[in-house]
Amino acid sequence: MPELVVYLLEGRSVEHKRALVKDLTSAVVKNLGVPQESVTVSLVETARTDKAKGGVLFADMKAG
Amino acid sequence: MPELVVYLLEGRSVEHKRALVKDLTSAVVKNLGVPQESVTVSLVETARTDKAKGGVLFADMKAG
Amino acid sequence: MPELVVYLLEGRSVEHKRALVKDLTSAVVKNLGVPQESVTVSLVETARTDKAKGGVLFADMKAG
Amino acid sequence: MPELVVYLLEGRSVEHKRALVKDLTSAVVKNLGVPQESVTVSLVETARTDKAKGGVLFADMKAG
Amino acid sequence: MPELVVYLLEGRSVEHKRALVKDLTSAVVKNLGVPQESVTVSLVETARTDKAKGGVLFADMKAG
Amino acid sequence: MPELVVYLLEGRSVEHKRALVKDLTSAVVKNLGVPQESVTVSLVETARTDKAKGGVLFADMKAG
Repeated sequence: MPELVVYLLEGRSVEHKRALVKDLTSAVVKNLGVPQESVTVSLVETARTDKAKGGVLFADMKAG
Repeated sequence: MPELVVYLLEGRSVEHKRALVKDLTSAVVKNLGVPQESVTVSLVETARTDKAKGGVLFADMKAG
Repeated sequence: MPELVVYLLEGRSVEHKRALVKDLTSAVVKNLGVPQESVTVSLVETARTDKAKGGVLFADMKAG
Repeated sequence: MPELVVYLLEGRSVEHKRALVKDLTSAVVKNLGVPQESVTVSLVETARTDKAKGGVLFADMKAG
Repeated sequence: MPELVVYLLEGRSVEHKRALVKDLTSAVVKNLGVPQESVTVSLVETARTDKAKGGVLFADMKAG
Repeated sequence: MPELVVYLLEGRSVEHKRALVKDLTSAVVKNLGVPQESVTVSLVETARTDKAKGGVLFADMKAG
């Protein structure tokens, strides 16, 4: 209340996740005026074989 | 119809999950008057490095 | 922590919703051993024109 | 925009996933008139111990 | 089982929704080999004031 | 990629929403190193009769 869910490709380090949830929480507190303790963030990682854009799996895309 | 999704931290036993989905389904059937067979429950487990409260990862919290 | 989301067709009364979230929360507290205050429940209502089973919108189904 | 999320039991091959996201994307492009590149699909796999129908875990169901 | 959720901007006609859920269901049946009756589709519409890309609300974007 | 979903109680102004999605997007770009254009944010508002904490609907809570 509010709850944030972030869908991202797998492979981020704990350091990046730690910084991300901190900054996202600050953005919510600043703009919605809710207590920091009320904000939850869930990171949902998806394998490259389980996500597609334009009908093509990320696992099948050329690097770039 | 209805579909329930439960977001929880990882680490629950199958016994606890079995009892949980049974009781949740009963609560829906009792209060919404739908057939038991129409109720689905999905449990979505999150690692402690992937969930935060108050801007802090559960993996970084003190036990308590 | 845990967070429950319930997807249901629109049209339930507040009385039914009140009783439903109470029973669902009790089921979680009983089976997962978490504090009652930590449980959140969100009800997401869907119009009959926005939900389908077997490829047919609920709005197009015969009553029964 | 649009984003599709598909909740399915674990165990599908990459070949099946590849064909599925392709056909789902085509269905969206055909019916909503959006550019193919704007469509994303996420597949969320659930273990048989984490999903239930009628109050029973899939892991506990008889085959058939 | 499987359940599909489609997040889209509001404003589609019932005719487009009807055709969309039909084609999405066919894509799932064809590629996953599940019974048609087991497939559910939920359409979740979002207002243009409630969705953003690149940090900009759709309500604030120029037509194009 | 990444996609953010924010579940919040209804009643925020467009100004607050505009600032929120801007700051959330910046937090993602800064910490994950993805292009700004690839970030989408969806705000999902819930009525006070459709959300509960501790088994009690927000509509039934005392102000405070």
